[in-house]
Amino acid sequence: MAASKRAVGVGLIGFGTIGSGVVRVLRDNAAEIEEKLGVPLVLAKIADLDLHSDRGVKVRKKLLTRDARELIADPAVDIVVELIGGLQPAKDFHLQALRAGKAVVSANKALLSEHGVELAHAAERASLSYGFEASVGGGIPIVRTLKEATAGDRNLEVYGIVNGTANYILSEMAAGAGKFSEVLARAQAMGLAEADPSYDIDGFDSQHKLVILVALAFGKRIKAKAVHVEGIREISGIDMAYAREFGYTIKLLAAARDTGDGVEARVHPAMVPNAHLLAQVSGPFNAVCVQGRALGPSVYYGQGAGSMPTATAVVADLMEAARALLGGTGPQLPPYGRKVSLLQRERVIAMAETSHEHYIRFLVVDEPGVLAMISTILAGEGISIATVSQHEKPLRGAVPVVIRTHKAKEAALKRALAKIARRKQCRALPVVIRVEESLGES
Amino acid sequence: MAASKRAVGVGLIGFGTIGSGVVRVLRDNAAEIEEKLGVPLVLAKIADLDLHSDRGVKVRKKLLTRDARELIADPAVDIVVELIGGLQPAKDFHLQALRAGKAVVSANKALLSEHGVELAHAAERASLSYGFEASVGGGIPIVRTLKEATAGDRNLEVYGIVNGTANYILSEMAAGAGKFSEVLARAQAMGLAEADPSYDIDGFDSQHKLVILVALAFGKRIKAKAVHVEGIREISGIDMAYAREFGYTIKLLAAARDTGDGVEARVHPAMVPNAHLLAQVSGPFNAVCVQGRALGPSVYYGQGAGSMPTATAVVADLMEAARALLGGTGPQLPPYGRKVSLLQRERVIAMAETSHEHYIRFLVVDEPGVLAMISTILAGEGISIATVSQHEKPLRGAVPVVIRTHKAKEAALKRALAKIARRKQCRALPVVIRVEESLGES
Repeated sequence: MAASKRAVGVGLIGFGTIGSGVVRVLRDNAAEIEEKLGVPLVLAKIADLDLHSDRGVKVRKKLLTRDARELIADPAVDIVVELIGGLQPAKDFHLQALRAGKAVVSANKALLSEHGVELAHAAERASLSYGFEASVGGGIPIVRTLKEATAGDRNLEVYGIVNGTANYILSEMAAGAGKFSEVLARAQAMGLAEADPSYDIDGFDSQHKLVILVALAFGKRIKAKAVHVEGIREISGIDMAYAREFGYTIKLLAAARDTGDGVEARVHPAMVPNAHLLAQVSGPFNAVCVQGRALGPSVYYGQGAGSMPTATAVVADLMEAARALLGGTGPQLPPYGRKVSLLQRERVIAMAETSHEHYIRFLVVDEPGVLAMISTILAGEGISIATVSQHEKPLRGAVPVVIRTHKAKEAALKRALAKIARRKQCRALPVVIRVEESLGES
Repeated sequence: MAASKRAVGVGLIGFGTIGSGVVRVLRDNAAEIEEKLGVPLVLAKIADLDLHSDRGVKVRKKLLTRDARELIADPAVDIVVELIGGLQPAKDFHLQALRAGKAVVSANKALLSEHGVELAHAAERASLSYGFEASVGGGIPIVRTLKEATAGDRNLEVYGIVNGTANYILSEMAAGAGKFSEVLARAQAMGLAEADPSYDIDGFDSQHKLVILVALAFGKRIKAKAVHVEGIREISGIDMAYAREFGYTIKLLAAARDTGDGVEARVHPAMVPNAHLLAQVSGPFNAVCVQGRALGPSVYYGQGAGSMPTATAVVADLMEAARALLGGTGPQLPPYGRKVSLLQRERVIAMAETSHEHYIRFLVVDEPGVLAMISTILAGEGISIATVSQHEKPLRGAVPVVIRTHKAKEAALKRALAKIARRKQCRALPVVIRVEESLGES
């Protein structure tokens, strides 16, 4: 195949934001790409149900089809790019493409986190490239880095900010641009959040990405639904203000740790120390931190979403797939950096069994003995207090009391808070945000 | 070759800091590496002139030789790792290894910046891997990222902090740990700086690394000696204090920009805005920022030196070379991500022709008319002043006057400063540090 190939044909399923970015990058950099590959990377076909909306890029009419199956079967298509997202029919398209002997490139984190191993296995058996750099961190080459750069190291932790929408909202709130609902509405109006924002702001997008990162970083298969997930809807201005006072920034954190006896994997809002690079990641940017036994800490930062940045990740995968095709022997590296048969199923440690430092904000009546009550109950569960803060004036007889704990087991904290919440001095359910002083300390 | 290979043999030339790290990483992660490659990566031979010093790792005596040529010729050696640094005999070892049909992995930035293209060409013709991830940024996978991840994009700028020793010294000075000479002496005592520190602190190490980054990022060949270089010896506590006052951190910056009509490439101390991620890079850490037309800004951060971090980069290259060997068809990607014949020779724009914002500290007599004199001369050269600061008490009749300019051509500034320095009101040569407000704005 290598010798006869005069061009590598790309078929694009899904002509939305990322798809139009891919068309633009392939066009803008056609000469350089051809130079690097030795042959041109040609857009052979585009499939989308909507053939009429303006995507800001011109494509010849005859390239367009509403039938993805036709695109997959087209002999001019060597690599199928799937950008429609979701489980079905995306999964069928991946399998059909592989069965037809075509490499697959995708940004589909939901599909990858659910069926990635099965799909990668099909690609491996067929000796075809299966690229998903664009599924995590947009334009940040974190998939490649974990597959190749840290291949000889043992990764201990992988964590970061992997959802641009949530990070944009939290950054705006931290900058005083309004409360959650206001900032969300503005982000939706600007196209930075979906009409149904749940996938992003409730943490499911981060959850799916974390499953992919865990497979790449640790070589472990975990189930998405086993990953603890909390979103950012409950983050309020008052907690933002306390975070600032204590030297923290609130971020939606996705974090995993390979303990050697199960994987810790969680997605939730967290107070990140301002001295940590993650606290500096604002707006739609993403950053992923990797803690390696030999490498120590490293950080990868860039635009986590958006048409053009994500398109560069897709095109990088296209070029790698093209090289494997032109080389004639298929990819030298399997999709997960090791044979999928080597990916071990691993249990996710129940969140209740994990230990963290916590910020807890109580709203209590302003009377003697309340702090004694709280600290007695916490002590009863073995939870040790690091700092207490009570400096606001009472409002309708109630004051916020803010406590930071030393590391405490989630289960113990939950029991203590349930007890405290039942006391009549408690005027609202306590707000809890984990404090991340130990990131990267494995 | 692929089918018959039962192991891939590694020959190590140079058993120093990085070399012993490589031995340790190969040993610590042997099982995982073998799993990923399908065969073990075996340390077959080590060559060093000193066979007696304790490196903290045990190796069998029969692996050791003082003769690098014997190592290269050894049939058990498939990949030669050169870690002795310097131009010769390192260059001969690379060429001999390639002639003997062996892949080469190296951390030798001096050699790469001087003869990288010639050596990569030899590797290409022989269809052999030639890896130099460890030559820039220690354990940061910046070589890989520029070769693969940004392959479909057009890179506009590449810049960062690429020397850990200089960054450690500047970080310590900024933290108030003493003046340059004191901090340097301490760094030397701690093994963080060489006995002869010139290569690191005078900027030559960064200069060599920048040449490598320019080739990878822009596909352009430039000469190291054409890259403007200034070191950090002249940085004083007073300039550190002014930087802090103005919201900057002084860093040894290596920066290149592809203007489309020549490359701008320079190494010098610079005031970096505190809001920029580079300002947060402290101690021995490195960070490289890439500005892509489609990708936008991205940053790669990690330990820029040290035994174990740099060893992970070497081992990543070893695994890639092993895969190419086992695949039987050689590397799918040439050393610079494109054929070396495509690397264009490019001129480096003379520093005098480039424009920057500047911080200038004058020491002048405390009398009326001095500021008028300075601003008149600057204006005469077309240099526009952004801010003036004069708030210290005179000491022996002289006061510091600090001026920040808008963008001004280096040549014009040089002329103006020469005129000002000749005036009798001037008590010392003006100190100039470039202010980097436009990084990544291409």
